[in-house]
Amino acid sequence: MYLENSDTICAPATTSGAGAISVIRVSGDKALEIAGRVVTCRQPDAITSAKGYTIRFGTVSGTDGSPVDEVLVSVFRAPHSYTGEDSVEISCHASKYIVQQIMLLLLKAGARAAEPGEFTRRAFLNGKMDLAQAEAVADLIAAQSAGAHRIAFSQMKGGFSSELKDMRTKLLEIVALMELELDFSEEEVEFADRSQLNTLLDKVMEHITSLVNSFRLGNAIKNGVPVAIAGATNTGKSTLLNALLGEDRAIVSDIHGTTRDTVEETLNIDGIMFRFIDTAGIRETTETVERIGIERTWKKISEADIVLGMTDITRTTEQIREELDELLPKIDFSRQELFLLLNKCDILTAETLQEKQTMISSLLDSSGHAQVHILPISAKIKTGIRELKEQLSASRKDKLADSDTTLVTNLRHIEALTRTHEALTRVKSGLASCIPTDLVAQDIREAIYYIGSITGEISDNEVLGVIFSRFCIGK
Amino acid sequence: MYLENSDTICAPATTSGAGAISVIRVSGDKALEIAGRVVTCRQPDAITSAKGYTIRFGTVSGTDGSPVDEVLVSVFRAPHSYTGEDSVEISCHASKYIVQQIMLLLLKAGARAAEPGEFTRRAFLNGKMDLAQAEAVADLIAAQSAGAHRIAFSQMKGGFSSELKDMRTKLLEIVALMELELDFSEEEVEFADRSQLNTLLDKVMEHITSLVNSFRLGNAIKNGVPVAIAGATNTGKSTLLNALLGEDRAIVSDIHGTTRDTVEETLNIDGIMFRFIDTAGIRETTETVERIGIERTWKKISEADIVLGMTDITRTTEQIREELDELLPKIDFSRQELFLLLNKCDILTAETLQEKQTMISSLLDSSGHAQVHILPISAKIKTGIRELKEQLSASRKDKLADSDTTLVTNLRHIEALTRTHEALTRVKSGLASCIPTDLVAQDIREAIYYIGSITGEISDNEVLGVIFSRFCIGK
Repeated sequence: MYLENSDTICAPATTSGAGAISVIRVSGDKALEIAGRVVTCRQPDAITSAKGYTIRFGTVSGTDGSPVDEVLVSVFRAPHSYTGEDSVEISCHASKYIVQQIMLLLLKAGARAAEPGEFTRRAFLNGKMDLAQAEAVADLIAAQSAGAHRIAFSQMKGGFSSELKDMRTKLLEIVALMELELDFSEEEVEFADRSQLNTLLDKVMEHITSLVNSFRLGNAIKNGVPVAIAGATNTGKSTLLNALLGEDRAIVSDIHGTTRDTVEETLNIDGIMFRFIDTAGIRETTETVERIGIERTWKKISEADIVLGMTDITRTTEQIREELDELLPKIDFSRQELFLLLNKCDILTAETLQEKQTMISSLLDSSGHAQVHILPISAKIKTGIRELKEQLSASRKDKLADSDTTLVTNLRHIEALTRTHEALTRVKSGLASCIPTDLVAQDIREAIYYIGSITGEISDNEVLGVIFSRFCIGK
Repeated sequence: MYLENSDTICAPATTSGAGAISVIRVSGDKALEIAGRVVTCRQPDAITSAKGYTIRFGTVSGTDGSPVDEVLVSVFRAPHSYTGEDSVEISCHASKYIVQQIMLLLLKAGARAAEPGEFTRRAFLNGKMDLAQAEAVADLIAAQSAGAHRIAFSQMKGGFSSELKDMRTKLLEIVALMELELDFSEEEVEFADRSQLNTLLDKVMEHITSLVNSFRLGNAIKNGVPVAIAGATNTGKSTLLNALLGEDRAIVSDIHGTTRDTVEETLNIDGIMFRFIDTAGIRETTETVERIGIERTWKKISEADIVLGMTDITRTTEQIREELDELLPKIDFSRQELFLLLNKCDILTAETLQEKQTMISSLLDSSGHAQVHILPISAKIKTGIRELKEQLSASRKDKLADSDTTLVTNLRHIEALTRTHEALTRVKSGLASCIPTDLVAQDIREAIYYIGSITGEISDNEVLGVIFSRFCIGK
């Protein structure tokens, strides 16, 4: 799939669409030579002789001599470029036709069309960034909120990598001590101070655990805090979803790369991304088919960080009590928050509403659920929607607040960290049960392997292929 | 709507989407100063002191000091920039969030968000291009085929403008001669040689007529050759449309700015753009409502350059003859081409097909329609589709062939040219009927006004507003 790195690659670096300009990237040993062949400047060697970080103006002509466009060529010289190689960026008018023609001319002049992510892959292979940093580039581009952007940027700048490097160095120290011991094993002397080893291991494992635990939070920031909208049918769940999205729906929908099925919508409230999950109504449980739907609803509720319990406040007290009896036991209050939304409040008089609200409050208090937020709303006429958004944002503000803690958001990283942790657990128990040092050392080397695989100290072509294929072309 | 030109404007110049980089443009007296405030480089005055056509690397930080992105800043100094003003292009990671943040910071630093087309408007106001050239920039970006691209590029480079300038100069000469005559009118001498004036006028009018006549061809190149698919219901019109579009449909659909209603699809065959218009079935004419539909069909057929007449070859000879009798009189063979498609040819045996084809051929010959192209196809199993495409392309190849003739594609230009022509017609008849010279001179001045309005020699803010509002933001 990937050819050797000595060839010169090219790809559009901007999306075609209604922009003013498009940019085409060329990188490789012959980038300047090829660009010089495609773009004619007043001075013949203008591009090949250009210094790095300068721009040249020129004309691109088709093979038949007809003009294609007037372009600007930005020149970058190795190693001071994104890829670390000689590179140019050709800036032309944002026409699909023109971009296509220039690409064809570049290919004809000796460049090769780049694979997705190949520019960043080269940056990695040329030592401009490690693998975790390279992965952060894709996250940075996809970031839709301040939080997600912050995590990706810090990872791209190497924050996470340096933590990993620290841990790896510690593990390498341990293995060095152990190997020293092995060399002198004939003499039956324990060079490595076992209790010191244990302390070092504990520290590393604790760090890894905190990184693994950061995933739930990191993921909430990256993909949105999962909010399940639960409640009986006809309580207004879909209306609520629409009211929440309001005119923002279009904005939400055109964000690229948002993974959504039909019932998920993301919304940025006050800089925090929320992912709203509409669920099937809870109550209608007579048929098998419906039961499956309801089990799915319970599953979604259990996966959410926040549950919006929709209640039709015009129903009888008895009905509402029944609904609560069903919903409350399903909420894990140690990690989930419940907002009880008293919908259709516009239909009741202020007095009746107050009465019912007091009744529900005391109902919750008496069952030990005082922590439930209660909010009268009308999804239909949009009463209370602003308050709900404010409360949602406030409830996450502290948890998602800016912090210098590293948050892991990448499943590949979590898997590698988990495997590192497992190997280290084996090391610890090995040390405790006096298993031969060479076997213990093997587990530690495995841990080092996994932790190194995150930054790409250890990597193979297949892994790189998987990682960079999720990039867009031109990156 | 537009503020004065002394302020500094900014806008994204690339579409947000799955690209690698995004570019934000800043233009105006304070472009470098504002960019220098938003982008921090190692050297404090790196941007403000930068030479034109150089690039600086820097970091953008939010108002709270948190990093937003690492960017490249291309610096252009007046008058050597697109707008003719000091300009910078900030190249950042292609994230909607990052672009938004940088835009906010630029606004905070004193820039103003640009109106659609405002960069090009400034290029026009600063004398970098005339109005016809500026309009061609939008056409260039929208160009979807080699032909449309060629017309737009030539217009952008001033080909059309120089023709207009020539004509305008000629008209100014005439008016000067006439005014000389007026100054000496007391002496009742005709300074201007009337027959020479007439010859000059004829030349200009002839030129204008050829430009106006080029619109049909220019429009076909720009928006696609209109091809109507006509035929009775169930002859397979929609199936043919799908077969023609084939896997190209996705490509066709994601081209931005294609004006389509539900029944129009454009397709680039061999570099020529065709615009296929599916029509309602022709035959079912009993009800009033249907009759309206059919009249619309006839109208669409009359507007097309090419008509694809779909015939179900499995129908009886009598039925086919009836259909032809209805269709043929509607075709204006002096300017339209008819392709008779014998659909469902896969159902017949080769022998029967041959028989029917011969019969239809002689039917057409005997009615004096030998010029009709006959092609057996099967829209369903895609027999003959390639042949049809080849024939369509061949039929237009000569007409749309590369030529140095100017083709006018802009309705505003056509209107102005038509009015110029009308005014000149009045001038001619005025000269012939010995109307006082000052009245004739007034008509000529009107002609000069209209011809000048195309390139913007004469323009008002309202006209500019209309023209540039069809640009995208950032251009």
